[in-house]
Amino acid sequence: VPKEWLLNEAYIEKDGRRIVDAANNNLHIIGYSAPVDAVMDLADLQPHLHSVEASPDAIPYINSYYRPEWGFCISHRDRMAMEPGRYHVRIDSKLFDGSLTYGEIKIPGREKRELFFSTYVCHPNMANDQVSGIVVLMALAEWLSTRDNRYSTRIVFVPEMIGSAAYLSRHLREMRELIVAGLVVACVGDERAYGYMPSRHGNTLADRLIKEILRGKPNLQRFSYLWPNRGADERNYCMPGVDLPVASFFRSKYGTYPEYHTSLDDLSLITPCGLADSFDALKSFVEITEANVLFKTAAVGEPMLGKRGLYPAALTHHAGLEHEISLIMNLLAYADGTHDLLDLAEIIDAPAMECARVAKKLVDAGLLSGVGLAATPRHYLAVVPEC
Amino acid sequence: VPKEWLLNEAYIEKDGRRIVDAANNNLHIIGYSAPVDAVMDLADLQPHLHSVEASPDAIPYINSYYRPEWGFCISHRDRMAMEPGRYHVRIDSKLFDGSLTYGEIKIPGREKRELFFSTYVCHPNMANDQVSGIVVLMALAEWLSTRDNRYSTRIVFVPEMIGSAAYLSRHLREMRELIVAGLVVACVGDERAYGYMPSRHGNTLADRLIKEILRGKPNLQRFSYLWPNRGADERNYCMPGVDLPVASFFRSKYGTYPEYHTSLDDLSLITPCGLADSFDALKSFVEITEANVLFKTAAVGEPMLGKRGLYPAALTHHAGLEHEISLIMNLLAYADGTHDLLDLAEIIDAPAMECARVAKKLVDAGLLSGVGLAATPRHYLAVVPEC
Amino acid sequence: VPKEWLLNEAYIEKDGRRIVDAANNNLHIIGYSAPVDAVMDLADLQPHLHSVEASPDAIPYINSYYRPEWGFCISHRDRMAMEPGRYHVRIDSKLFDGSLTYGEIKIPGREKRELFFSTYVCHPNMANDQVSGIVVLMALAEWLSTRDNRYSTRIVFVPEMIGSAAYLSRHLREMRELIVAGLVVACVGDERAYGYMPSRHGNTLADRLIKEILRGKPNLQRFSYLWPNRGADERNYCMPGVDLPVASFFRSKYGTYPEYHTSLDDLSLITPCGLADSFDALKSFVEITEANVLFKTAAVGEPMLGKRGLYPAALTHHAGLEHEISLIMNLLAYADGTHDLLDLAEIIDAPAMECARVAKKLVDAGLLSGVGLAATPRHYLAVVPEC
Repeated sequence: VPKEWLLNEAYIEKDGRRIVDAANNNLHIIGYSAPVDAVMDLADLQPHLHSVEASPDAIPYINSYYRPEWGFCISHRDRMAMEPGRYHVRIDSKLFDGSLTYGEIKIPGREKRELFFSTYVCHPNMANDQVSGIVVLMALAEWLSTRDNRYSTRIVFVPEMIGSAAYLSRHLREMRELIVAGLVVACVGDERAYGYMPSRHGNTLADRLIKEILRGKPNLQRFSYLWPNRGADERNYCMPGVDLPVASFFRSKYGTYPEYHTSLDDLSLITPCGLADSFDALKSFVEITEANVLFKTAAVGEPMLGKRGLYPAALTHHAGLEHEISLIMNLLAYADGTHDLLDLAEIIDAPAMECARVAKKLVDAGLLSGVGLAATPRHYLAVVPEC
Repeated sequence: VPKEWLLNEAYIEKDGRRIVDAANNNLHIIGYSAPVDAVMDLADLQPHLHSVEASPDAIPYINSYYRPEWGFCISHRDRMAMEPGRYHVRIDSKLFDGSLTYGEIKIPGREKRELFFSTYVCHPNMANDQVSGIVVLMALAEWLSTRDNRYSTRIVFVPEMIGSAAYLSRHLREMRELIVAGLVVACVGDERAYGYMPSRHGNTLADRLIKEILRGKPNLQRFSYLWPNRGADERNYCMPGVDLPVASFFRSKYGTYPEYHTSLDDLSLITPCGLADSFDALKSFVEITEANVLFKTAAVGEPMLGKRGLYPAALTHHAGLEHEISLIMNLLAYADGTHDLLDLAEIIDAPAMECARVAKKLVDAGLLSGVGLAATPRHYLAVVPEC
Repeated sequence: VPKEWLLNEAYIEKDGRRIVDAANNNLHIIGYSAPVDAVMDLADLQPHLHSVEASPDAIPYINSYYRPEWGFCISHRDRMAMEPGRYHVRIDSKLFDGSLTYGEIKIPGREKRELFFSTYVCHPNMANDQVSGIVVLMALAEWLSTRDNRYSTRIVFVPEMIGSAAYLSRHLREMRELIVAGLVVACVGDERAYGYMPSRHGNTLADRLIKEILRGKPNLQRFSYLWPNRGADERNYCMPGVDLPVASFFRSKYGTYPEYHTSLDDLSLITPCGLADSFDALKSFVEITEANVLFKTAAVGEPMLGKRGLYPAALTHHAGLEHEISLIMNLLAYADGTHDLLDLAEIIDAPAMECARVAKKLVDAGLLSGVGLAATPRHYLAVVPEC
């Protein structure tokens, strides 16, 4: 963990006028900049100026944690307007033995085992690439607090990479024991796309869940875990020796949209609808995980459905019920005690939540039961208290 | 099992003239109709009349086992010709504690283990969807009776669903022990298509056999076991807890051809050639199962074929023998004791019967032997008495 | 093994003039021809003459080991020029209990376990289909002699089929114990193509290596092990009961190029560049096998790369290093002790040698280690002395 960085002020003056001032926009200063107080020619200042020629109004967001450096980020338009002359550059900053701040919310469930959600909190001023993750996870925490949850939930808000590494260093053992499935949630506020990245080998319950939840979403983008796709805290959560069942959920993924890591990633980019859809996806993640048990038919052979009101009595009375009957018949056929809800949804090619709804009807009719799940490399669940 | 239904007579009279009479065509009455004897207006009769508007000459075939109902099935043309007025409707039927009749043929083989074939016998007047299955399985039984069979054979003729459920309730235990591979045989009389449906997970010997037998057939249609594809006794034979190694074999599958479940599914639909081709497919099913052993080469390395007359001595004398030599060489290469005949046919991409013929030559030449097969989830055979 | 064949002379004379003489080109005589000394009409001689009508200047190469026969091979042009008349045909040859000569080179390595290379030496006059394999394997032997090899190497030069069968009959047991991976090397002198044939089931280390080595090569041709693709000593090395981990490496494969088995397969067909490229491929085969260990990261989670000089300190300094950083990051992510170098190359989709180079940097930085490999069906290596 690097030292804590404190910035008092940072500006560039010319002829006594502050032409760049971090007090106006804290993107103007390269994060972790070393102190400087000097007067220099524009030519000497240029190597310390950063702008995006292709996006002349954007102030880029840059930091340098591990290499002593100083610099200012400005729009390319402003940079071009700078005239030769003497510039007074001042950065009053210091590094000191401070502390690393992270947030953690724990919501108890009927089981000790946990769902896990993580987002980062270290990107100043970013909307989609920062605020959206916090907002959606706060809403999720609020929703979870109002309901009877099967699993306990752990939500963390950490400085990217450094924070998750620090958090893991204290909690890895219990997390490996408790976490059933998790998501890194980032860039979830816009409406332009849906995207996900699997865990390292793509074979955990979280991977099956994220695919199910995003099945059929418009403009769905799949990323592999290979560098440089990965770029947030999954870099820690999924590495060898950690190997938590954690996938990543995005709308427009970091690094792939034009406003990324500039001042243009502002609140105009994220929408109530984008945030709400992302929140709904996370609710599905929770609900499907809760409903994901092994199902087993009670009968040997095909049970009589008509007398239980689950099947029309005459062949002429099927109209409009075909889809429901198919779900019933196919759940009964494949619920042999070896397939969980997600398997069944994949075999039947129907949404897991719809399968869960119909499975509930069959459980209520005494035709199906949820059975104990052995812990497996796919992070199956060990006990099924109820269906 | 529902009660037995006896129909004495069923007709609709107008002005003393019988305009619909089950004595003329037993499709006219909805199977299992409750008794009625009443005079009513056409408007009141209409809900009890069934016809197919799109196929105005067809009398539909309908029954209602589990919901008390009565009705008549007529051609749409006749229905349209009915004039307003008073109709005398009479159905003299009764339900009583009767019996369920099914047929069973058992043909002994050198082994106790069995091949299994099933067709249904409850569809009145249907040709492809009824008679064809009975005819082809009777021919198969006759053929099996004339030969020295490796496996014993069990052929059942049952009322659909109810009959197979009843039969399973008495024989499931022995069937699970004895049956090596089986087929539901239905709709096998026309020449328009070939089709098959695998067992529930598609991983039994029956599944491998039906695919091999129908390989390369024209207009081959593959159905999954998912509802509503399945629709006959495989609904019982393949369900969880039963799980017999049973696939389904069709020509034009039930539910997929225009004459299905109407009076148009008559003898004009099925042909001697259609029935004979289906019979040949079933013979292949038997013959390939009998020949399906693990093969193992006797030699280490490639044996000398020339001195055994299996390979031309000079490179200039191959003409016309290339295919036979390829079969010989590839059987020898892959017969390592881990592949059975069906595996070899798939690896070599040649028909199993052709592989069996060449394997026989190699066995006779002392180059190959059939070896004991362990029982496996693919329903491998436990003992190989001869090749 | 057939008897040894000695040819003293073989010619066809007409009017005292030798019009065909094996002394001019030993392709003129069918290999293993029986002795003959007779005067006959052209019509009687014709069945003993062989030429290629489609390639009128080519003298075909034919032999007949197992069927007593005699004959001459000539260009079709010369054959057409032969006029009716009396021909004196003389073949002075004899069969006797001789010996079978083969060559064997053994180069010791730090390990007893071996790499294996085989080529055939029985094709008179052939350039690509004979000399190329000998030349490239001699160069490989020379190169191996100058370096510190991890594995010992066994290179054999055998008469095709008969020689490898004889060699196996004496060495099979030790070869099965010692050989880690091997190649049949044949037809490796031209520049027209690259090709390979896997072992019988395509699942040995040799198969993984040959695919890696030829990855991305222009005009790459993949052959299955099925007859008639296979045609050289892999017919012995990979048969049931032998099952050595041996794949085949070609440029233009035997049987697939127009000059094959005729006098046109001469030195004009093979080029220094073609031979050198093949030699390089074999060197890669050796080097990758040596580098193929399981890799395991030392850290839990993602290690700090910047302070080790493996990662640029600021996001602005990545230019040109993206590819190297991706290799580093992806090796670290997937080096979990279950993947060897070839697995890693496949996961990361990068050349194995490049992965090996970067892995070496990471090993030197203390971030990665090569770990012991269990012997597996893929012929993994049992001990890893160094990375």
